[in-house]
Amino acid sequence: MKFAVLGAGRIGRVHAGAIGSVTGAELVAVADAMPAAAEDLAQLHGAEVRTIDQIAAADDVDAVVICTPTDMHADLIEQFVRAGKAVFCEKPIDLDLGRVRDCLAVVEETGGMLMVGFNRRYDPDFAALHAAVADGRVGTVEMVTITSRDPGAPPLDYIARSGGIFRDMTIHDFDIARWMLGEEVETVIASASVLTDPAIGEAGDFDSLNVILRTASGKQATITNSRRATYGYDQRIEVHGSEGMANARNMHEANIEIADAKGYHRPPLENFFMTRYTAAYAHEIATFVGCVRDGKAPPTGGYDGMMALALADAAVKSVAEGRAVQMAEILA
Amino acid sequence: MKFAVLGAGRIGRVHAGAIGSVTGAELVAVADAMPAAAEDLAQLHGAEVRTIDQIAAADDVDAVVICTPTDMHADLIEQFVRAGKAVFCEKPIDLDLGRVRDCLAVVEETGGMLMVGFNRRYDPDFAALHAAVADGRVGTVEMVTITSRDPGAPPLDYIARSGGIFRDMTIHDFDIARWMLGEEVETVIASASVLTDPAIGEAGDFDSLNVILRTASGKQATITNSRRATYGYDQRIEVHGSEGMANARNMHEANIEIADAKGYHRPPLENFFMTRYTAAYAHEIATFVGCVRDGKAPPTGGYDGMMALALADAAVKSVAEGRAVQMAEILA
Amino acid sequence: MKFAVLGAGRIGRVHAGAIGSVTGAELVAVADAMPAAAEDLAQLHGAEVRTIDQIAAADDVDAVVICTPTDMHADLIEQFVRAGKAVFCEKPIDLDLGRVRDCLAVVEETGGMLMVGFNRRYDPDFAALHAAVADGRVGTVEMVTITSRDPGAPPLDYIARSGGIFRDMTIHDFDIARWMLGEEVETVIASASVLTDPAIGEAGDFDSLNVILRTASGKQATITNSRRATYGYDQRIEVHGSEGMANARNMHEANIEIADAKGYHRPPLENFFMTRYTAAYAHEIATFVGCVRDGKAPPTGGYDGMMALALADAAVKSVAEGRAVQMAEILA
Amino acid sequence: MKFAVLGAGRIGRVHAGAIGSVTGAELVAVADAMPAAAEDLAQLHGAEVRTIDQIAAADDVDAVVICTPTDMHADLIEQFVRAGKAVFCEKPIDLDLGRVRDCLAVVEETGGMLMVGFNRRYDPDFAALHAAVADGRVGTVEMVTITSRDPGAPPLDYIARSGGIFRDMTIHDFDIARWMLGEEVETVIASASVLTDPAIGEAGDFDSLNVILRTASGKQATITNSRRATYGYDQRIEVHGSEGMANARNMHEANIEIADAKGYHRPPLENFFMTRYTAAYAHEIATFVGCVRDGKAPPTGGYDGMMALALADAAVKSVAEGRAVQMAEILA
Repeated sequence: MKFAVLGAGRIGRVHAGAIGSVTGAELVAVADAMPAAAEDLAQLHGAEVRTIDQIAAADDVDAVVICTPTDMHADLIEQFVRAGKAVFCEKPIDLDLGRVRDCLAVVEETGGMLMVGFNRRYDPDFAALHAAVADGRVGTVEMVTITSRDPGAPPLDYIARSGGIFRDMTIHDFDIARWMLGEEVETVIASASVLTDPAIGEAGDFDSLNVILRTASGKQATITNSRRATYGYDQRIEVHGSEGMANARNMHEANIEIADAKGYHRPPLENFFMTRYTAAYAHEIATFVGCVRDGKAPPTGGYDGMMALALADAAVKSVAEGRAVQMAEILA
Repeated sequence: MKFAVLGAGRIGRVHAGAIGSVTGAELVAVADAMPAAAEDLAQLHGAEVRTIDQIAAADDVDAVVICTPTDMHADLIEQFVRAGKAVFCEKPIDLDLGRVRDCLAVVEETGGMLMVGFNRRYDPDFAALHAAVADGRVGTVEMVTITSRDPGAPPLDYIARSGGIFRDMTIHDFDIARWMLGEEVETVIASASVLTDPAIGEAGDFDSLNVILRTASGKQATITNSRRATYGYDQRIEVHGSEGMANARNMHEANIEIADAKGYHRPPLENFFMTRYTAAYAHEIATFVGCVRDGKAPPTGGYDGMMALALADAAVKSVAEGRAVQMAEILA
Repeated sequence: MKFAVLGAGRIGRVHAGAIGSVTGAELVAVADAMPAAAEDLAQLHGAEVRTIDQIAAADDVDAVVICTPTDMHADLIEQFVRAGKAVFCEKPIDLDLGRVRDCLAVVEETGGMLMVGFNRRYDPDFAALHAAVADGRVGTVEMVTITSRDPGAPPLDYIARSGGIFRDMTIHDFDIARWMLGEEVETVIASASVLTDPAIGEAGDFDSLNVILRTASGKQATITNSRRATYGYDQRIEVHGSEGMANARNMHEANIEIADAKGYHRPPLENFFMTRYTAAYAHEIATFVGCVRDGKAPPTGGYDGMMALALADAAVKSVAEGRAVQMAEILA
Repeated sequence: MKFAVLGAGRIGRVHAGAIGSVTGAELVAVADAMPAAAEDLAQLHGAEVRTIDQIAAADDVDAVVICTPTDMHADLIEQFVRAGKAVFCEKPIDLDLGRVRDCLAVVEETGGMLMVGFNRRYDPDFAALHAAVADGRVGTVEMVTITSRDPGAPPLDYIARSGGIFRDMTIHDFDIARWMLGEEVETVIASASVLTDPAIGEAGDFDSLNVILRTASGKQATITNSRRATYGYDQRIEVHGSEGMANARNMHEANIEIADAKGYHRPPLENFFMTRYTAAYAHEIATFVGCVRDGKAPPTGGYDGMMALALADAAVKSVAEGRAVQMAEILA
């Protein structure tokens, strides 16, 4: 199978490398608005630089990986499913829920395949956690606790166009919550503050938040987010059920411990999403390649992308109005 | 110093034993509506059985420890501060906030001393955690996460007269949240479900809940409670600040680990509040004795008892109305 | 039952306190060469000061706890078993194996009861470990690893009369090894160095050592000792068997963890044997009281005391001669 | 730089893959006595099948990776250093110390470069541990504890030609001990048993052993080995120094934990050396490539290979003679 990568930035380079390491997959084309970036990435993998339209029209491209800026995602998804290519797109599909719905309608019409890049589901530890839960190791799932703290905030100009912390950062946790709960959320309650940097507040965003999600049967999930964690990239999931509890632990820079007169010390956590989720990105692309090869629906599809965004919209509304928001209000 | 214990039930026996082991403190009297219980406990410690009124009138009693049913707490506090005795009272002061306020007014008028039994503040690990936070080890406190899961629900008849899970169980976590945040809560958001036993719901209560507390400066605390934890008594606190994070961990039945072909195994947690908090109860009473001896204000006084109950009232209202409740509404 | 404590020093005071907290046990007499020490301890527990001979002759004393200097142990054991008292004696019975054997012969002749104070067997975590092993959780025991590191060396004058590190410190580990192996040791190999303080070497002793013990069936145990551990009192046991492994972990000053930009930090270990083994000392005396009451043989008797000393003698010989020493050489 | 792999078996395939993933390195040739194996590996990486002599004579090969059976190692090393190729050779150089010395003499004469495959030094956690020790985090190194337990014994026919457990398995631990001690060993004491399978004893080997190593300054290291560990591949290192202790921990199959009524459970350890040391093998080959490129001496050279074998010889002698063996006896 032959792949093209659209967007030769940081995450495009990660995915291009991952394609190269999957048996049976080959990167044949790279597109980027900046020719030098495209050229550099293409050369590294023995691929060609092409325009987006050339890739859409190409007979030798089976699938594309969209790593462009967010505002191009929906248009590109539509163009490539219409061109009969399988599509992997980084989250989010779009920051506007209406636009996402229109895009998914096109995917459905064309019968195309769309996988959305919720990388965390492909992390080996989180996957092992989900497998244990699916195997009934904790009985019936009742409550989920998700902790997600970034080592630091992104640049302010990124924040300004990010759609806000709920759509940019919490969106991953909303997806994890849906995955672990195994039941759709009915009600969203959220609380958000600016605690780490007043400039984030001046940009109209928050940096610290808590969310409570509730399903129709009363299951609950909580999400805690912060744009600051001095000790690294804090990524934890805890699932409680009728028979017990399961959790996934953080990844430290090294698995060593030092003891001295001040106590016992372990290194901080991996503090960059690319090193923390190296294995997740590789498994994610390998999963995409497998789905393309076997004609199977991807584990994280367009509907998942839409629902995570809808949960973000509900959380924004809950903060603004100081009340529990029904998902029916958002999805109506 | 000479002490009397009012109420010779389970917790009264614990406190009586603790008094005996503090140098300079002596248990001289025990009162209980059931003569056999009073007699048994008095004999064990070489104390006398007396009536409540005899103890109030006694010259040889400096302080009392109130371990009676909740509905007697406020009346007894008033009687004994008026009688000039130092008073330790198990939480809650009363289930009705108005009654608590009236009671505290009497304490204030008399200049009496009242310590409220929030035992968790006296747990050595939680105390070490608070000391680390107070020492600035995590910088300025920003977010607190409290997990509290009981091994099992109390009997349904207890639940019926408990005032509900927020006033009975979460009240401890509200107190811990205030202690760790170091700033009063302004807004309360809560979500509660019945997930472990429908009979609890039929009794008008919940068994699973999440709460978000927010202060005026935007600090947030979350509380997760469940009336079920198959793996023991789950009691965790995590405090995040500008410079880092501090947490207190659970106490296992034994500090051993066994590895076999199925993996690595540790024993479950201590699953009874008395074994989990053995050291806490001893330190609590030692603190009370010290405060009586030195004429110092106790670390957990009447105001703390009132504020934890007010937070519970706010949480109940938040669940009922599906909205963020301002503490000003409750305390007005 | 009524008890006397011989020796009102540090460990005598611990045992006296423990006797007081066991239901049915009472401390009636204290003896010490220093009258002030005896008086102080006796007063604390409402006991009398008596001479050793008075205690031996007393009708109201069922059992004695010997906490005197080591060189009095064997004589006192003989005197008191002859006087018909049950005897608890701190380790070692004597530093000379011949003297120990003579003493045990007297115990046997008189049919007296002797318990030797190997406190570690009564530690709740080590006891839980042994119970797991005895329950077959690791299958047939094959290899045992014992780590024992003191926070610091004792004073040099103590070292000079201690009989050397193998008889003073490692003796505890020899006892643990026998207990966990469940089979007598046949061969001893040891290696000892002076690494922490040259003065220890000048005093004729070592501060750092490793021992390998082997049974007839080929089971092996290793012991690592050091007189220095900056991070506290390091006390670990690991047992390997045909089906798995079990270990007991160290006890930290508090069960908390702090994370900051430098990593994750836990407090050092309990660094004093009395705080580390508080529960062990209490269980030890409670076990002694129970054995006296029920007329049962103690878990750690005279034979255990002799065998641990014999292993120490073998280790000393192994270091001196640079070879594996057969226990038959020592016990012949 | 261009590489050839000699031996297309399991480890040859791992190293071939590693070469392909290092920038600037290319696999051009594969040799194997079994043509199909050579062909298969060559094809996978776009390399050619050649004979060993063709590779030695080839102008387009800078370096070779020797993964043949052990009895060919020394001859191939000599052939290829004489041919002017840089050489990476799997451990051991040879099972006979005299043959190793002759081989290293040839390496020295030719001025050739030889790296020996002690993969564990390239494990990220062990490397982080060594770096912490080298940075003085534990002060002056005093005592080292190495635990190495295989999930299971190799086939009996492998054992028969392996040179015995000390030369086959412990050799890795001898190398780690030298690396961590930072000072050559002077004395070796060992004890070995057959505990897991009598057939291993019948084959003249052992399956369970302990070793004590001592340096001239009195530093000590212990090694514990077993051919059985039901819970996975147990690989631990602990380094004690004047200021503290540092350890490297085991790698579990997944970093999750499950709690239920029976307790807390983690998955077993990675139980295959290739998955446990995946990262180590990659770093090892990358290090070799870097040394070839930069003309630098490798971190694990011929001398390290010889010394680890000499320590194994000393341990064998110590077991046979029941005494401490001086390295001077072996190296004389």
